[in-house]
Amino acid sequence: MTTLHVNHISQHFGKHQVLKDVTMTLEPQKIYGLLGRNGAGKSTLLNIITNRIFPSSGDVMLDNTEVFENDDCLSKMYLMSEANLYAERLKVRKIFDLVQMSYGQFDWPLAHELAGKFQVNLEERFGRLSTGYHSIVKLIIALCVPADYIFLDEPVLGLDANHRELFYQELLAAYEKRPRTFVISTHLIEEIANLVEHVFMIDDGQLLADEDVEELIARSYAITGPRPAVLAYTEGLNVVGEESLGQITTNYVFGTLDDTRIIPDSVTIEHLDLQKLFVYLTNGRHQQNEH
Amino acid sequence: MTTLHVNHISQHFGKHQVLKDVTMTLEPQKIYGLLGRNGAGKSTLLNIITNRIFPSSGDVMLDNTEVFENDDCLSKMYLMSEANLYAERLKVRKIFDLVQMSYGQFDWPLAHELAGKFQVNLEERFGRLSTGYHSIVKLIIALCVPADYIFLDEPVLGLDANHRELFYQELLAAYEKRPRTFVISTHLIEEIANLVEHVFMIDDGQLLADEDVEELIARSYAITGPRPAVLAYTEGLNVVGEESLGQITTNYVFGTLDDTRIIPDSVTIEHLDLQKLFVYLTNGRHQQNEH
Repeated sequence: MTTLHVNHISQHFGKHQVLKDVTMTLEPQKIYGLLGRNGAGKSTLLNIITNRIFPSSGDVMLDNTEVFENDDCLSKMYLMSEANLYAERLKVRKIFDLVQMSYGQFDWPLAHELAGKFQVNLEERFGRLSTGYHSIVKLIIALCVPADYIFLDEPVLGLDANHRELFYQELLAAYEKRPRTFVISTHLIEEIANLVEHVFMIDDGQLLADEDVEELIARSYAITGPRPAVLAYTEGLNVVGEESLGQITTNYVFGTLDDTRIIPDSVTIEHLDLQKLFVYLTNGRHQQNEH
Repeated sequence: MTTLHVNHISQHFGKHQVLKDVTMTLEPQKIYGLLGRNGAGKSTLLNIITNRIFPSSGDVMLDNTEVFENDDCLSKMYLMSEANLYAERLKVRKIFDLVQMSYGQFDWPLAHELAGKFQVNLEERFGRLSTGYHSIVKLIIALCVPADYIFLDEPVLGLDANHRELFYQELLAAYEKRPRTFVISTHLIEEIANLVEHVFMIDDGQLLADEDVEELIARSYAITGPRPAVLAYTEGLNVVGEESLGQITTNYVFGTLDDTRIIPDSVTIEHLDLQKLFVYLTNGRHQQNEH
């Protein structure tokens, strides 16, 4: 069982620095979320990890072996991305054949089962399928390749609500049957919050959080009440957002509260969900940058 | 002010019938939702309306003029779709120039304002932008073209939560400043439920609903309570879905309730939201088809 190490990855495109010294460790058989605003650098990072593009600096290692142009390492990783790598004229079945040729193995029984559940006709040409069905075909491949590290870049792009739910169920079922590492990059955070154990948040090319979901939530607070009481209670704490409705204010705090402070009766404290925490952590930063 | 009539549109691709006799009317200055499962025929319909593909039968009229190959009519309509129509090497500013050349006018002040809010660099080449930013550039165009009918096919594809929220706000602001018709096709139904006045639901190529959102919701019920009481109360009604948790059952009913029946004390009746109604209406049909 191999561990994947991403070491000090930076990436420049011309003058633009897309990734800044990103270091992270992906353990075997774990489900990760990769979260970031549009343009934060998520897809670039996934393309670098899977050797589709080359970083300006840093390296990616599977245990002690550098992944770069190493076929054995690369056969252990699969990236599902928005890019349509398959010729439009190919039938779905033929695309599955090609994946099998590249990876040596392919879980055909599961592929047939999933094609049935998602109502994909294997004899249809890829180019004739709708946007949502392009995603579905790529998802089926991602669940059926024998790789140990599966990277899903916007897996549910264009999928309707029923198909999204079906996919999350099937991903969990596939994971339970054969545990492997999944890294899910998505903007529908509330939908994966219960699926992923650990998240990486990237903001403006930098790693902003690398933490178990449970721990993140435990350190995220929404403090609600009359504005003066809320301000007094949260003074000096790491307030990442504020909302007001009439006389009532909510301050969002990320970090530790001050146990020595007495909580006024009029103030309630709750935990944030992952989606909301993400929005405040990354929106706050962007707003600060603008001023 | 022109009204758009979609008359008896059918479309075959080979043996496969994608659209079956779809008739609908789009009024001026109204915001519509176009809902349907993956592969239901939404994109095909929008491509037909805007003359990008030709139907097997039926026609599209703006008042009394057929849209087909009529430049004057076509200049009144704009379709934003997943297809990237712009050369990758073009700078964003140049793409806006091209749109202005096609449509005669372009709301440059709004384009600059939106580029600022979404943090789009007009001097960046289109091909260098991420998936989410491709959508953003196309959304800016959609809000800045002078057309009276704007069709948005999956407008928020790949957009993060903050950008989605910003887009909905900007769409409403643009609409208030200059009312025009928007047709929004999306799978994130709960996010547009408060934005759209009227929805068309397409299922398996057929129009399943053509109704104001308010009226749809008014006819949608969730009846919850002990299973025998719920079954007795909903017997013979149009039950579109059922969920059970332990002893408690919820039956989802679409249509009218029977006023002569006494509601047991143990049973509660609530209205469904649009997303849930859609899932039950379309999931139910698919399951019926399979058996």
